[in-house]
Amino acid sequence: MKKENYDTYIWDLDIEPKIELLDKEMKRYIEVCNEKLGMVPNVILANASDPERLKSFVNFYNRLMVKEGHLSKLEREMIAVVVSSCNQCFYCVVAHGAAVRQISKNPILGDQLSINYRSAKLSKRHKLILDFAAKLTETPHKMNNEDREVLRKNSFTEEEILEIVEVTSFFNMSNRIASGTDMKPNENYHNMARK
Amino acid sequence: MKKENYDTYIWDLDIEPKIELLDKEMKRYIEVCNEKLGMVPNVILANASDPERLKSFVNFYNRLMVKEGHLSKLEREMIAVVVSSCNQCFYCVVAHGAAVRQISKNPILGDQLSINYRSAKLSKRHKLILDFAAKLTETPHKMNNEDREVLRKNSFTEEEILEIVEVTSFFNMSNRIASGTDMKPNENYHNMARK
Amino acid sequence: MKKENYDTYIWDLDIEPKIELLDKEMKRYIEVCNEKLGMVPNVILANASDPERLKSFVNFYNRLMVKEGHLSKLEREMIAVVVSSCNQCFYCVVAHGAAVRQISKNPILGDQLSINYRSAKLSKRHKLILDFAAKLTETPHKMNNEDREVLRKNSFTEEEILEIVEVTSFFNMSNRIASGTDMKPNENYHNMARK
Amino acid sequence: MKKENYDTYIWDLDIEPKIELLDKEMKRYIEVCNEKLGMVPNVILANASDPERLKSFVNFYNRLMVKEGHLSKLEREMIAVVVSSCNQCFYCVVAHGAAVRQISKNPILGDQLSINYRSAKLSKRHKLILDFAAKLTETPHKMNNEDREVLRKNSFTEEEILEIVEVTSFFNMSNRIASGTDMKPNENYHNMARK
Amino acid sequence: MKKENYDTYIWDLDIEPKIELLDKEMKRYIEVCNEKLGMVPNVILANASDPERLKSFVNFYNRLMVKEGHLSKLEREMIAVVVSSCNQCFYCVVAHGAAVRQISKNPILGDQLSINYRSAKLSKRHKLILDFAAKLTETPHKMNNEDREVLRKNSFTEEEILEIVEVTSFFNMSNRIASGTDMKPNENYHNMARK
Amino acid sequence: MKKENYDTYIWDLDIEPKIELLDKEMKRYIEVCNEKLGMVPNVILANASDPERLKSFVNFYNRLMVKEGHLSKLEREMIAVVVSSCNQCFYCVVAHGAAVRQISKNPILGDQLSINYRSAKLSKRHKLILDFAAKLTETPHKMNNEDREVLRKNSFTEEEILEIVEVTSFFNMSNRIASGTDMKPNENYHNMARK
Repeated sequence: MKKENYDTYIWDLDIEPKIELLDKEMKRYIEVCNEKLGMVPNVILANASDPERLKSFVNFYNRLMVKEGHLSKLEREMIAVVVSSCNQCFYCVVAHGAAVRQISKNPILGDQLSINYRSAKLSKRHKLILDFAAKLTETPHKMNNEDREVLRKNSFTEEEILEIVEVTSFFNMSNRIASGTDMKPNENYHNMARK
Repeated sequence: MKKENYDTYIWDLDIEPKIELLDKEMKRYIEVCNEKLGMVPNVILANASDPERLKSFVNFYNRLMVKEGHLSKLEREMIAVVVSSCNQCFYCVVAHGAAVRQISKNPILGDQLSINYRSAKLSKRHKLILDFAAKLTETPHKMNNEDREVLRKNSFTEEEILEIVEVTSFFNMSNRIASGTDMKPNENYHNMARK
Repeated sequence: MKKENYDTYIWDLDIEPKIELLDKEMKRYIEVCNEKLGMVPNVILANASDPERLKSFVNFYNRLMVKEGHLSKLEREMIAVVVSSCNQCFYCVVAHGAAVRQISKNPILGDQLSINYRSAKLSKRHKLILDFAAKLTETPHKMNNEDREVLRKNSFTEEEILEIVEVTSFFNMSNRIASGTDMKPNENYHNMARK
Repeated sequence: MKKENYDTYIWDLDIEPKIELLDKEMKRYIEVCNEKLGMVPNVILANASDPERLKSFVNFYNRLMVKEGHLSKLEREMIAVVVSSCNQCFYCVVAHGAAVRQISKNPILGDQLSINYRSAKLSKRHKLILDFAAKLTETPHKMNNEDREVLRKNSFTEEEILEIVEVTSFFNMSNRIASGTDMKPNENYHNMARK
Repeated sequence: MKKENYDTYIWDLDIEPKIELLDKEMKRYIEVCNEKLGMVPNVILANASDPERLKSFVNFYNRLMVKEGHLSKLEREMIAVVVSSCNQCFYCVVAHGAAVRQISKNPILGDQLSINYRSAKLSKRHKLILDFAAKLTETPHKMNNEDREVLRKNSFTEEEILEIVEVTSFFNMSNRIASGTDMKPNENYHNMARK
Repeated sequence: MKKENYDTYIWDLDIEPKIELLDKEMKRYIEVCNEKLGMVPNVILANASDPERLKSFVNFYNRLMVKEGHLSKLEREMIAVVVSSCNQCFYCVVAHGAAVRQISKNPILGDQLSINYRSAKLSKRHKLILDFAAKLTETPHKMNNEDREVLRKNSFTEEEILEIVEVTSFFNMSNRIASGTDMKPNENYHNMARK
């Protein structure tokens, strides 16, 4: 992978990616990113500052967001954007907003979830998912049994509920890693799937 | 591992630990917990509902909280308690409050951080760490360069700053997994290291 | 009463208890505390800085929290802990958390109310009391008729409602006296009734 | 005292003043109110629902607000209005707003403190008092040493600081008793000292 | 118009009214104010710092607040006071509080809306209007279809709903112009229509 | 103007634009919009439901946002986006985000201000403007002299300060009109000036 594939600014820390220290699997992972997306997402470069950091992050992320799950990929990306919008996380709104546009083929939906998901025309299922995610993000201490019961009464399975919780929670972590380090999204994201 | 080592209530989800599906390494991990602590923490049992879930969680957690890091173990546990107290997470305040008592040999410090870290008499270093963690937890969107500069001017290294960010962010995830599922701490934690 | 019964740090004010100025009744009150609890609570020592201050505080407190009332003693102490937890008052969470443990013989309940009362398994009656107390603490300006009607429909008497209001209000005062002066609880409280 | 001196509505509780049960001293107290103010404040009638309630309230209140103290009477009443305005307490803003108008002979000051004390042109001393009171009211958990140090550096004595804390705390109680019971101020207050 | 009709302090900006630059219509407007009210409201003098500023403000204001509308004048003034009270705007609470007292002939209603509209005994219609206005003021991002449906189910017309939105929105602007410039109300307002 | 230039959904009110009732000047205004932008902004169509409504809105808006002012056009649009982002107003973030992209020729700046202006690399002047606008939007009651003094010390003129206040305040109105009626931006805005 050539140097020019790095954006010049990744985050406000004097800590560099150390691609040369990565094992084969992780090096390969980075190459695949580059091939598929035409860039290596800055969150990957940032985590590549330490081989263990990258590996544990990638495994955690992939299980939750990439592999087959109980929610659809779009649903998981919608949660990502809404959580990140609640936390006003520039990196994650931009990167996952692009993913929502791409998967949904609906560029306006991406903007609606980025700015205020209540402005979007959502199916009942999606509204329930996002209301739960927003509450768990903003007032985790107010969560209670009834919040889960609402989902159950609307035919969500236990595994779906758990996945909503996990994805919401994960982005509450990611948002703070990005905001705490001033991580910046790759420029490509901004225009991706705009029409 | 015998059944009686499980607390009867883990969380408000009809999803059970599936110890029998775990690989050797994870089974061994659970046994070691049990040997060392006299119990398997409920967060481990909850994650054991799926072999991948457990593995990615344990790897992520261990790199951050168990292995040698840039902050001391006490410092990382102090962050854990303060973040969890901001989020009023019952599971994590109880479990990591116990860890603070144990490592610091100061049971009152555990209570102070659990209720309001501003009530504790802290070194300047610890106060700076916890102020940063509390701000990143409560108003991630207000983080800026100056917050990191304050740490730098007080001799924190880049790696230390990153670790403060990572630990803070991790517990913002963990707190929401626990609050979103009503996960309950094992009873043993409550009295651990009380004097 | 000997000097050694005082904790060395009471609050962040250069104002001392003046036991010698107290009248017989208040001197006796302090001795009784000491006999029963093995210590004089710092809130009493702090108020003993002025004979009138102590007397009016003790009378007010005793009518509300010690004498036979309309709520049980446990209920009044539960309110005390939940209000103090909302306000993150170190002194009052510690002192009244101990009281909840002692009266309820349930040390976990004390921790639950201290961290987040929504994590406790409560009777409907207790949940209604604590929801009312938390709302009156956090958003007093939003209280309205319906809040009282909910209690009435659940068989609370007018006197019980008034007592919930009074105890909640009292700890909103006490919490601020403690937080405004950095009053510290006696060390004994931390381990009291832990099992 | 004749019935017609009662306003018809005191609060939203079916609990009546029981003047006939009061002891001589409290009966006299009520008569004096009536003579001096031409009315019995509803907070007194409300507390007169129980002889002990009234007595402990009146003693507590008088020590703090009526007797010679370390702050001037106007300063204590200014705190009362600002705290009550933070909590949007109708009863206390009206009753103590009247007191500020009366003592200060400045009816506009009363309105300024009732609506937003930052709109008033205040002496440095008064601004410091009210900033402290507003912070202790709204974010008691954020109080720390520095808040008291600011006062000390501006020549406030320890006793003055304690009195600011006590008066602020007292009205955080009173506001909640009034809001929790829908206590209404006597009509006379509204026009008192208007010019 | 003579100089003495100006209050000496209008706002904290070194920008003066320039009556001499106004066109005939606006000069006449100011004279009419003076004749009817015995003063020129400071908001008019402030806007008179620029002929265009005044004209566009007066036209906007008059269409909304003075001309025949879908809500009664009292209803529009009630909204003005409640919005201004939410935003703690000294200028607008004072000026429109006076208007409520004048139109309603109920001086207490003015104080109730100024301090906490929940303390007022309101018709269902008025309560619905003010609840909507308060929500739109405090959490505009949480507005949704259901908020409008509640009004529709209670016989509000589309035009009435729009007017509630417009008046609420207008005072969210006015309040910030006043607070952002420290605009002060004319003294006359304070005592207007007090009985 | 032909019907097909209307987006089908303008807002959630059963109130239609009444182009036929408009006077010549306003009809011409709408035609000019259409010629220049290839669409009539929905906010114009919505206001065209009443000739007076449209006229007073357009005059108010043009004086502030279109004509030569004391701030540059970009600065005024930056304020518009930041205020609208604080209030999570879908309509205004989309429409004025497009304007920022267009004027600045910096599409990323538009996204940064839309999501979290603190993520943008701003000149000191722009940062001061936006900090003032954000504070005036979120906590108007906390504005004070010092906020204006900061601007003055950084060479802002009185007229510039006033314009910052006016533009900020105007969008606090517009945001609530849009959120209160569920006004939707024309689809064209989303992709405008994306590269």
